Amino acid sequence: MTTAEFDSEMHVELIQHEASDYMVVHAARVSTLGDRVAEFEAQNNWDGPVPKADAGLINFLMKNRHGTPFEHGMFTFRVCVPIFVMRELHRHRVGFSYNEESGRYKQLDAHFYMPAEHRALTQVGKPGHYVYEPGSLSQIEQTHLEIWDVCNHAWDAYARMLDDGIAKEVARMVLPVNTYSSCYITCNPRSLMHFLSLRTKDEFSTFPSYPMQEIEWMARMMETEFARLMPVTCEAFCKNGRVAP
Amino acid sequence: MTTAEFDSEMHVELIQHEASDYMVVHAARVSTLGDRVAEFEAQNNWDGPVPKADAGLINFLMKNRHGTPFEHGMFTFRVCVPIFVMRELHRHRVGFSYNEESGRYKQLDAHFYMPAEHRALTQVGKPGHYVYEPGSLSQIEQTHLEIWDVCNHAWDAYARMLDDGIAKEVARMVLPVNTYSSCYITCNPRSLMHFLSLRTKDEFSTFPSYPMQEIEWMARMMETEFARLMPVTCEAFCKNGRVAP
Amino acid sequence: MTTAEFDSEMHVELIQHEASDYMVVHAARVSTLGDRVAEFEAQNNWDGPVPKADAGLINFLMKNRHGTPFEHGMFTFRVCVPIFVMRELHRHRVGFSYNEESGRYKQLDAHFYMPAEHRALTQVGKPGHYVYEPGSLSQIEQTHLEIWDVCNHAWDAYARMLDDGIAKEVARMVLPVNTYSSCYITCNPRSLMHFLSLRTKDEFSTFPSYPMQEIEWMARMMETEFARLMPVTCEAFCKNGRVAP
Amino acid sequence: MTTAEFDSEMHVELIQHEASDYMVVHAARVSTLGDRVAEFEAQNNWDGPVPKADAGLINFLMKNRHGTPFEHGMFTFRVCVPIFVMRELHRHRVGFSYNEESGRYKQLDAHFYMPAEHRALTQVGKPGHYVYEPGSLSQIEQTHLEIWDVCNHAWDAYARMLDDGIAKEVARMVLPVNTYSSCYITCNPRSLMHFLSLRTKDEFSTFPSYPMQEIEWMARMMETEFARLMPVTCEAFCKNGRVAP
Repeated sequence: MTTAEFDSEMHVELIQHEASDYMVVHAARVSTLGDRVAEFEAQNNWDGPVPKADAGLINFLMKNRHGTPFEHGMFTFRVCVPIFVMRELHRHRVGFSYNEESGRYKQLDAHFYMPAEHRALTQVGKPGHYVYEPGSLSQIEQTHLEIWDVCNHAWDAYARMLDDGIAKEVARMVLPVNTYSSCYITCNPRSLMHFLSLRTKDEFSTFPSYPMQEIEWMARMMETEFARLMPVTCEAFCKNGRVAP
Repeated sequence: MTTAEFDSEMHVELIQHEASDYMVVHAARVSTLGDRVAEFEAQNNWDGPVPKADAGLINFLMKNRHGTPFEHGMFTFRVCVPIFVMRELHRHRVGFSYNEESGRYKQLDAHFYMPAEHRALTQVGKPGHYVYEPGSLSQIEQTHLEIWDVCNHAWDAYARMLDDGIAKEVARMVLPVNTYSSCYITCNPRSLMHFLSLRTKDEFSTFPSYPMQEIEWMARMMETEFARLMPVTCEAFCKNGRVAP
Repeated sequence: MTTAEFDSEMHVELIQHEASDYMVVHAARVSTLGDRVAEFEAQNNWDGPVPKADAGLINFLMKNRHGTPFEHGMFTFRVCVPIFVMRELHRHRVGFSYNEESGRYKQLDAHFYMPAEHRALTQVGKPGHYVYEPGSLSQIEQTHLEIWDVCNHAWDAYARMLDDGIAKEVARMVLPVNTYSSCYITCNPRSLMHFLSLRTKDEFSTFPSYPMQEIEWMARMMETEFARLMPVTCEAFCKNGRVAP
Repeated sequence: MTTAEFDSEMHVELIQHEASDYMVVHAARVSTLGDRVAEFEAQNNWDGPVPKADAGLINFLMKNRHGTPFEHGMFTFRVCVPIFVMRELHRHRVGFSYNEESGRYKQLDAHFYMPAEHRALTQVGKPGHYVYEPGSLSQIEQTHLEIWDVCNHAWDAYARMLDDGIAKEVARMVLPVNTYSSCYITCNPRSLMHFLSLRTKDEFSTFPSYPMQEIEWMARMMETEFARLMPVTCEAFCKNGRVAP
């Protein structure tokens, strides 16, 4: 019989992309150049860094919240995260596409989330103003034991029901929300920035967010790819208070 | 200590609405009447049944998939359904708005889903072509026992962690996906029809769907309200193969 | 033969709505109350003003950009505006539904926009930083004459082509972009605020916008209805820098 | 003084893309493979043709209207088309991003649409059932003269107002809707198919559409790129009645 496997990581991998600071510049310039923007497409080395004037334009667009030039790009990530994280992720509707592992069509894996030691376990204060603290050693120990126990207990019940011919979609009802699930996610630079603004806590944010830690780790991994592929756009995003344009 | 409570129903209640067959007719007529459509707004008794010619127009729009006239209305439902149903629901992005109970901000209720006897338990065939069957008496009994046991076990662990001061968002990780959750859902007639076309199995569907039973029950309750408030539109939807326009 | 008629107004009329500050409060409270929110629905007098604590909650949501509770409402407007305004309007995609008068199916009206005297006619400065000024008397006179002349000239050509049996969709190609067109628009409180934040110029805006004057007049009329039906939400929007949550 | 230039073409150029039949297959397979889908990503030669079994899967998804696996791709087109075509294009809201030439920020070009001889000029029948016919020689001649005359007349007025210091956004009010405008458009394979299903007339369509000829020419050019980059998906789309999944 399979035994429950525990994991403390969010898994995020960039699978495909078409993303460039240049495209932002071109898309913005069509408003003042019209069809002559075609000449600029040809001149530019799309893989190199954008010239200073173009970086200034990107900053202007970000600061003044001209959002549409940031939509002509795409990122597809394959992620593997617990269901309770997936549920927050799926609330992003605009500019996001998803295909997720199905508990109806597939026998799920015995793969469960276990908070690592750096995951704060206690919550102080009121809704909207929580402060999270690490937790005492005994709290850490208890949490690990409880999670370990419930996951194993639930997994055994799931496996037994499958063995007895119960439909996957029925048997999975007992699995806890820390069960891992996999998903492809496609978004564009603008919808990604919107996600990042809500799912990261950052001292430079004009509008502070208080995301759950697990989704923030995931968001930070996505931001790393964003910063690598669209360095000028990402810098302008950070400099302008991390407000999605 | 609270004990787990079991429930076999989907709870769906219409909270507010602004929906009328007349609005579909007006919205379609603006294309040929322009501003003179205002005269028709005034003439009509919006609460009465639409005249025959208008019913014909609605049927024409549905059949030829002119979708936009069906967007000028709204339904807000309060639903209380298991998390595994909520997860399917939240995949509907366009024309859907959600606010859901939070496992981060609120202590969840000991309220769990238990399949009733009419819920098919076994699955025959291949993905995409499953046929569901009721299950033997022993399968029914086993399923009930397993679900009863895991829910109680998980609930006790959840309650103990909360007692020991663990944050709600951490403790809830052990709760199974059959835990109930509440949500407000707002949609428009067009997005509702799109939902219905995918989440009901119907012999008159041009494009057959094979939804999970629980979400179909929920969809059928929503359809009842739709049929009551927009009888002509709902009839045209059904007569034209349940294809969302 | 019809003669061209000139008009300097944007026409905006609220046709139907379902909008209330209470719904914002309920939608937010479901996150901490779950299904018990139903008790509050029953208690409230939805038509009266919201209590102070609820107004505080609305302000908190606005300030911290919790946007979804503002989506459970709707406004349908019938508007009659020039095509060049309609074109800006139709760029709003999310949470907006449209049905517009058709130049393919309907003979258009000889109804053209003429800037009134308070409409600034000259533009000083660079793109993104234009300042508009009234224009001299001779500029006003010339503009009126040119517009009067082109509209009449184009209208006569349109009418002649229709008389000779040319299809409406071909004949209309000669009509100028200041020709009026009618449209139904449905949006929700959140998408409306997003529209208002971009299409009004306001000294209290955190992110200043520089809209075209005609669309701003239109936006201000929509804002009047919004303020009337959702006074607490509208006030919170204004107090918090007119940033759509 | 510039003279009006006439053009009978729709201009459509693919600027960037990330589109592959393989991605459809992977996105669909994540539902039954979960994280093991990663192994398949590595095996495949994404640039080669998909194997027969995968083509069968794509056909199954299309036929049964499983739409989401078709969202993980993108196409960016630069188009230059008359305003009356742009207006139809901009009505596509979901999965479409736009940046268009601005008549507020840029002096527009004297570039106007003139129907070519193969463009049907007369309309027979009722709204919803129009049949278009070529038009007589005298109708063709008259149409050309009228359009030529109005465009030149309007352009001269536009140029004079600009010379006299009138703001671009005011002066352009006299320009006809057959003035060309440029735009970047980004969409995904699913939203593109939705567009194609509505904007092409095809004997194999399950739901016939009666698009304006100019937008159909544009749609056909976009379809050519789609067929080149995602041949199996495009074939499945055509074989299954050109219904967007």
